[in-house]
Amino acid sequence: MSAQAFECTIPVRWSDQDANGHVNNARVVTLLEELRIAAYLDWLDSTPDAGLPRVVRSLSVDFRRPVHHRRALTGRLWISRIGTSSFVVEHLLLQDGAPAVAAEATVVQLEPDHSRARPLEAELRGILEAAHRPGITAAAAAEDETAPTA
Amino acid sequence: MSAQAFECTIPVRWSDQDANGHVNNARVVTLLEELRIAAYLDWLDSTPDAGLPRVVRSLSVDFRRPVHHRRALTGRLWISRIGTSSFVVEHLLLQDGAPAVAAEATVVQLEPDHSRARPLEAELRGILEAAHRPGITAAAAAEDETAPTA
Amino acid sequence: MSAQAFECTIPVRWSDQDANGHVNNARVVTLLEELRIAAYLDWLDSTPDAGLPRVVRSLSVDFRRPVHHRRALTGRLWISRIGTSSFVVEHLLLQDGAPAVAAEATVVQLEPDHSRARPLEAELRGILEAAHRPGITAAAAAEDETAPTA
Amino acid sequence: MSAQAFECTIPVRWSDQDANGHVNNARVVTLLEELRIAAYLDWLDSTPDAGLPRVVRSLSVDFRRPVHHRRALTGRLWISRIGTSSFVVEHLLLQDGAPAVAAEATVVQLEPDHSRARPLEAELRGILEAAHRPGITAAAAAEDETAPTA
Repeated sequence: MSAQAFECTIPVRWSDQDANGHVNNARVVTLLEELRIAAYLDWLDSTPDAGLPRVVRSLSVDFRRPVHHRRALTGRLWISRIGTSSFVVEHLLLQDGAPAVAAEATVVQLEPDHSRARPLEAELRGILEAAHRPGITAAAAAEDETAPTA
Repeated sequence: MSAQAFECTIPVRWSDQDANGHVNNARVVTLLEELRIAAYLDWLDSTPDAGLPRVVRSLSVDFRRPVHHRRALTGRLWISRIGTSSFVVEHLLLQDGAPAVAAEATVVQLEPDHSRARPLEAELRGILEAAHRPGITAAAAAEDETAPTA
Repeated sequence: MSAQAFECTIPVRWSDQDANGHVNNARVVTLLEELRIAAYLDWLDSTPDAGLPRVVRSLSVDFRRPVHHRRALTGRLWISRIGTSSFVVEHLLLQDGAPAVAAEATVVQLEPDHSRARPLEAELRGILEAAHRPGITAAAAAEDETAPTA
Repeated sequence: MSAQAFECTIPVRWSDQDANGHVNNARVVTLLEELRIAAYLDWLDSTPDAGLPRVVRSLSVDFRRPVHHRRALTGRLWISRIGTSSFVVEHLLLQDGAPAVAAEATVVQLEPDHSRARPLEAELRGILEAAHRPGITAAAAAEDETAPTA
């Protein structure tokens, strides 16, 4: 289990809250996107709109606990599967020491003209392998986390 | 199969597009939320922030095709499962006559103080049953749709 | 005063509301943008990201009354000044029969490479003139409106 | 000129960009809101949805240069006028060492039931006075800034 998860702080905005007073579910998906963008910038120094496009093909999210404004939110991300032209990204958002959100996204790399999937090149494959925890889903990791509340 | 799907037009905003020039994935989740809100307003004349709170516990989304600005977007919604205090909502977004997004959300009804799940009352259960297509997922329905492009 | 204001309905989303339970101020600015986009589409059949870019140089907004979800919102737009390469757009948002927001934006047309301002061509100038109410600001128009609440 | 401006870094999200590839104008207004929220939290340890509501009555924004993703954005905020129940907030967003956005907002404190304006209490008045630069607008400050690009 030597692979390293990527980890960073995700800033929450006041306006991410909805009329229910906690972070809106769709906005949580924006926070998951920010976590992926941060990992891409750290790993590849690029964003998904430049060069080789990488698009989300499917996404599943478990909303375990509400996400709140004014409390530190930590994002953790790793890769659970590496295919020919796609990979599966696992996301965990933690607040007050407990998993609040667990999510999994299948990302496909496309040709620059978006015409079809494009095999992952060796450099990207190497980067993904360094964060590869085969078969370990965010949902399972969330269950494993002990959940002490501050 | 007499149950009726709820159907409505979902307005897309120019700013829903991201730097890639089509509707952002997280914003698609907002469009799915708008579809649910429209159904709740039609069925119950209420929004999920009032009275008995209904929260999304999990969500899975298949992004089959990019969603574009300036083309009519139709949302279709039905119920695939009715539990004691929760139900499963199926969402289909169609554009240019073809399914662009298929999504499934598990929604739980809570006590007003959010302390725990609350059984669905008879009125809500009746409304959900009128839109109940047991076991028919949006992903399966998307596969069934013939996909003629305008 | 034969010039015609452009008028349309602006859909409000549930998630436009913030933790205060009415439409967030910054989101009102998105609604104003949608009103301008709708006018551009009606007048020019184009959006500001295509062909000749049109950018907002300055914006001032009077928030007269909160904007609410679930009530029809009408947008009204006209031109108060036409310059060489810029024009001033007046926006009024009305809800329950009364002006809720009055706003003014100075829009500049740029060369395709964004290098400098580009004089308005005759066709655009003609379109703007048809909606030209010289010197009539949205703030003044809001004051003039009688404000019967439904 | 002993009054201190409040200063902080404002995180920009990838999805703040619009189809033109830079931060959307309406989203800039969200960044200005985040700057005010950060100042309120620093000064008052409260947000505008709690206790005594503070609402934006008017806002004017000069978009001097596009705001970009992936470059540090600094926010600077001070008070230019203190009235009986309202105050004027000046905002400057700086990127690459130059002012990108200058904005002014009039904020009114309301009674908890939003029924009418409520005079600023002594504690808040003292906090605002510590950041008071009478009559100095963000627009004027932006002009004064020398603008060396990194």
